[in-house]
Amino acid sequence: MKEIFRCAIAGALMCSIGTTTWAQEVNDEPLKDKWAPTEWGADDKAGAVNRTTPEIVLKAVGLVKKGKVATLGKIYAGDAPAFGSRGWRMTIPGLPTGGPFGGQKLVYNDEYLATEIGQIGTQFDGPGHIGVTTSKGHFFYNGRFLKDKGIGAYGVGPLGVQHVAKKGFVCRGVLLDAVALRGGTLPIPKENNSTDPGIITAKDVQEMVKRQGIAPIGTGDCVFLHTGHGNIWHPKDWDKYDAAEKSQRVKKFNSGEPGFGISACEYLAERKIILTGADTWAVEAVGKGFGGEKAQPFECHIKLQTKRGIWNLENMDLTQLVADKAYEFLFVWSPLKIKGGTGSPGNPVALY
Amino acid sequence: MKEIFRCAIAGALMCSIGTTTWAQEVNDEPLKDKWAPTEWGADDKAGAVNRTTPEIVLKAVGLVKKGKVATLGKIYAGDAPAFGSRGWRMTIPGLPTGGPFGGQKLVYNDEYLATEIGQIGTQFDGPGHIGVTTSKGHFFYNGRFLKDKGIGAYGVGPLGVQHVAKKGFVCRGVLLDAVALRGGTLPIPKENNSTDPGIITAKDVQEMVKRQGIAPIGTGDCVFLHTGHGNIWHPKDWDKYDAAEKSQRVKKFNSGEPGFGISACEYLAERKIILTGADTWAVEAVGKGFGGEKAQPFECHIKLQTKRGIWNLENMDLTQLVADKAYEFLFVWSPLKIKGGTGSPGNPVALY
Amino acid sequence: MKEIFRCAIAGALMCSIGTTTWAQEVNDEPLKDKWAPTEWGADDKAGAVNRTTPEIVLKAVGLVKKGKVATLGKIYAGDAPAFGSRGWRMTIPGLPTGGPFGGQKLVYNDEYLATEIGQIGTQFDGPGHIGVTTSKGHFFYNGRFLKDKGIGAYGVGPLGVQHVAKKGFVCRGVLLDAVALRGGTLPIPKENNSTDPGIITAKDVQEMVKRQGIAPIGTGDCVFLHTGHGNIWHPKDWDKYDAAEKSQRVKKFNSGEPGFGISACEYLAERKIILTGADTWAVEAVGKGFGGEKAQPFECHIKLQTKRGIWNLENMDLTQLVADKAYEFLFVWSPLKIKGGTGSPGNPVALY
Amino acid sequence: MKEIFRCAIAGALMCSIGTTTWAQEVNDEPLKDKWAPTEWGADDKAGAVNRTTPEIVLKAVGLVKKGKVATLGKIYAGDAPAFGSRGWRMTIPGLPTGGPFGGQKLVYNDEYLATEIGQIGTQFDGPGHIGVTTSKGHFFYNGRFLKDKGIGAYGVGPLGVQHVAKKGFVCRGVLLDAVALRGGTLPIPKENNSTDPGIITAKDVQEMVKRQGIAPIGTGDCVFLHTGHGNIWHPKDWDKYDAAEKSQRVKKFNSGEPGFGISACEYLAERKIILTGADTWAVEAVGKGFGGEKAQPFECHIKLQTKRGIWNLENMDLTQLVADKAYEFLFVWSPLKIKGGTGSPGNPVALY
Repeated sequence: MKEIFRCAIAGALMCSIGTTTWAQEVNDEPLKDKWAPTEWGADDKAGAVNRTTPEIVLKAVGLVKKGKVATLGKIYAGDAPAFGSRGWRMTIPGLPTGGPFGGQKLVYNDEYLATEIGQIGTQFDGPGHIGVTTSKGHFFYNGRFLKDKGIGAYGVGPLGVQHVAKKGFVCRGVLLDAVALRGGTLPIPKENNSTDPGIITAKDVQEMVKRQGIAPIGTGDCVFLHTGHGNIWHPKDWDKYDAAEKSQRVKKFNSGEPGFGISACEYLAERKIILTGADTWAVEAVGKGFGGEKAQPFECHIKLQTKRGIWNLENMDLTQLVADKAYEFLFVWSPLKIKGGTGSPGNPVALY
Repeated sequence: MKEIFRCAIAGALMCSIGTTTWAQEVNDEPLKDKWAPTEWGADDKAGAVNRTTPEIVLKAVGLVKKGKVATLGKIYAGDAPAFGSRGWRMTIPGLPTGGPFGGQKLVYNDEYLATEIGQIGTQFDGPGHIGVTTSKGHFFYNGRFLKDKGIGAYGVGPLGVQHVAKKGFVCRGVLLDAVALRGGTLPIPKENNSTDPGIITAKDVQEMVKRQGIAPIGTGDCVFLHTGHGNIWHPKDWDKYDAAEKSQRVKKFNSGEPGFGISACEYLAERKIILTGADTWAVEAVGKGFGGEKAQPFECHIKLQTKRGIWNLENMDLTQLVADKAYEFLFVWSPLKIKGGTGSPGNPVALY
Repeated sequence: MKEIFRCAIAGALMCSIGTTTWAQEVNDEPLKDKWAPTEWGADDKAGAVNRTTPEIVLKAVGLVKKGKVATLGKIYAGDAPAFGSRGWRMTIPGLPTGGPFGGQKLVYNDEYLATEIGQIGTQFDGPGHIGVTTSKGHFFYNGRFLKDKGIGAYGVGPLGVQHVAKKGFVCRGVLLDAVALRGGTLPIPKENNSTDPGIITAKDVQEMVKRQGIAPIGTGDCVFLHTGHGNIWHPKDWDKYDAAEKSQRVKKFNSGEPGFGISACEYLAERKIILTGADTWAVEAVGKGFGGEKAQPFECHIKLQTKRGIWNLENMDLTQLVADKAYEFLFVWSPLKIKGGTGSPGNPVALY
Repeated sequence: MKEIFRCAIAGALMCSIGTTTWAQEVNDEPLKDKWAPTEWGADDKAGAVNRTTPEIVLKAVGLVKKGKVATLGKIYAGDAPAFGSRGWRMTIPGLPTGGPFGGQKLVYNDEYLATEIGQIGTQFDGPGHIGVTTSKGHFFYNGRFLKDKGIGAYGVGPLGVQHVAKKGFVCRGVLLDAVALRGGTLPIPKENNSTDPGIITAKDVQEMVKRQGIAPIGTGDCVFLHTGHGNIWHPKDWDKYDAAEKSQRVKKFNSGEPGFGISACEYLAERKIILTGADTWAVEAVGKGFGGEKAQPFECHIKLQTKRGIWNLENMDLTQLVADKAYEFLFVWSPLKIKGGTGSPGNPVALY
């Protein structure tokens, strides 16, 4: 909100009221490059998930060979991965919350939770999460603005995640094992170019597909990146760490992350995928003060989500898939139908 | 809590302190009938989902013929189905919550939610939700008590839903269309016996399986009941109702419900299913002051969940499956890994 | 938020981007009439409470004659007066929340509350609550804008109620008994002029002062209006009403209210009072679609609070003062020092 | 909850069910010593505040000589003093939350808060906060038990703070400056006896009264202790500390505290005071694993609150009173009328 009124007229135009002159910093690329309407029409509220067809579903189902199942969500708790000032507080009212009832003496428990439900731990970024401040207002997916009717203090209305959640994600899941590619956990990038080992480029993506012996990335795929960064916060034995060690790990985890650079994101978009994901908090590379590969901060977020409706799943637990070398699988998951929510928690299922 | 101390010694024994005598009403069936340990051992925290094998998974995957997808969760909102004093409050901090950042002028939104997350709308009852007050304490799945170490005001510890969520549900989904069987929406039962049309008996279950032309219910199945009651709260056109009509529907919806009677529940348990579900708030029949078919209140909850670890999914949206007559399908879903949670919200996916 | 970007340039100027033209509706009176800085300087964050001097405090203390005490707050609960979509949810984690500890076997309980803490039940409107959309942004007390540094999704920073709360209100409390004046509970006004019995005019204020035999309203006074409207929601015997009756009362209570009209507010401002209050949810008159006495909606809120820093206390329980005819008293209260809060709950104390 | 069922029969008696034997650790002193009913009768829900008379009020009012005002609450914020897993989360929905309305273009903000409202920062312990596990259940003020009717997951009913809040505290405030007595900030006690400098004894109390030249502590007084410990978390310049320093201060602050030992508490109870308070999180001395002066952990909490209804105000800001040597003053404050709440936040006012 803070910057909104510095100027409400685009770019070069300075605005003045009385003796005061002020300017708002805006980015009118979404308007000039006509990011809206998208290929799915002006009414669309779901994005790239529209690409899923019965053929794509059946083909993905065909990947299930062993009958194995992996759940890809992380544990939700007060010390689960959170960014900035987000938090998770859960209490059990009453313990038991109610009862005993009837001759059976039934008792029951509820849990009361207060949290940024769609933006903590394993989290899905939906249409209402990422936008761009333009001279016309805060631009979101398919040209919706935060000023639009139905968007307000109690929900993002037409940008709500429920519209994506009605469809759900059923796709070929592709695991890109960057740890195998690089020979170890990827570092937080230090340089904003294609040679930094923490940044996965378009070429790296193609190299991994080739090395892992799977079919090229294509329409309707869901692509997940394994960087090893997710092992910082949190590893399997998280509960054994003391407070000081946990605190150090949290700090390191949030200080940046390896991930897709802008060339990889553009490549994935061209291949017409429908979902990105990773074992990191943002999926794309984040260095100190910059994104990966000469990108602006969180440029993949904007270019994939706001521009193209290719949504994003953060803080996944990919460890079982990696251990099983399950590079292709049937991915099945749908966000919660949270009316007006910006995202969703999740525990997706992989079958292979 | 209120009744706990009326007596802490079983059944016939009266307890006294000084000149005061008091008795606690208890139900020691779980202790006498040795509900613990279950067939999966004293350490088990997941229940019947342990029955799932790769063979079961592969067989269920084989049900996907058309490549169709249905999402089975309801909309979560302030006016979504809730029971008792449960509630849902969501706000968007800041709008936008943060930014603009960088030259791209990225802004983002979070949502802040306060709710009984595992026990509202489409909801999954996990091991920590339903128990029985015995003379040894509040007995839960596999002999755990609320007094046990690790169970407290901030989570139900070893009874937490995360232990089930690590496994997830991949099964043959079976839709039992009781509306087709009865020729209309089932009524809230008035009589606590097998002739009430609001109560689905074991025989009714077998009849539906036969009429619908599907294989008998068997090990590892997930069984969902369509009663039509879920159309009361809420129908597809919910937003068009005014406050008074909504209020009436909420009252009616919560006043009772058609569903499985105790004979059906015992039958499903014998068939070794792993999950029950329905378009109602409790899945089993609930009449005024009694359960269905001479059962105690919520007796199916106790007999399936607390005793056998067959969990339960309430307030499902089965309308697309019914419309498509998708009586058998691949059901894929896992609860959120909420540490110490009693249940989970959900938006399960059916493939057929 | 919805209207913000319709135009970001003032009044007559229309704004255009590409082929799109839009206009924001603004009210630049705060800028043109120079509502900032106020008489207490550009740095002031507290407003009219700055008027309180030791002499005023001592004079108010002198009003305590009988040693009687009244508490002026209402009960906070899930069914306490709330407006719009605000709500109150409180649970007791654990029951007990912790313990037993030590040989003493101490246990303790907490309560977990989720609510619009400063804007529910008996509530205080602080500097961050009421503002005006101008062409320079959302204008608040002393010329601060919501776009200013330190104001964001997690608190209103320099507009925070803590700055008022450091000072507190110690003043002559004046009870204006409009029920006695009108001969009964005041109606919700139907006409937007000075003859509507639901609107208290400047003349009415002076008449009540005279009839009640108290000294004229003056610098540093806190002035409270008794309308009887607060008896609708909620009366003393609130718990005896059934759900339907409660619902009707809530609807009526919130549909409008009698109270100060704009002439009374301007008069009180001239008399240099420091606080207004009433047994209603807004203190000023609110009719259907308009404020009282030809005022704009909530015009007193803007003219007293945003413009002059005369804050406001809503939903007071004045019944004991009325019964005791305690028309003058020592009023002692301070809001909670909620960092970045817009208001505060309260239970003020009257001594007389 | 964890210990409740180890035994439900007192002390020496072991309890058995079938082949299982278990024992609950209890403390039956409240039953044996007949802590209930208290001197105010079996129906009383307010405690020692009943001692306040018009004479006491008038005498306290007489202490106001200079017309000075001090507010004694601390800042409430995410980093304000909290114990254990308690927390404070506040967000501003929408920013603005609503508007613009009318020709005036009014906008407004709310704040949404989730917290242990009565047990964080400056906090008041009411009748529902502290109890003792006895063989009859969890014993609270005036013989109420957590099992009693009306006490449950959504509030402590007859133990609710609203019953105290209807009366409020108007009293002679007495500031005992232990920093002046000891010549510096008091240390966290290391020894559980009367010679430890971190423990204030009955003799110390009398010595301070004498040195400070004020009238003896007597009926209806509210007594506040200045230890200097409150300067650890948080000092006036709190915002200047970095995260690591804040973390160290929080840890130190919560690791124990100087305060009243059991002899001082017994003395104050004999003098018939109505409220204790301090610049610490528990008011009484807390060392590692023990209370002060051979007391059990939090023994003053039990002996003053649970037994006698002398309530307690924690984490006060006494700095202005200390600076002004305001050792006697008119103290005016009432908790919020939170229905079923265990305590209350506060910002009490001192006049002198």
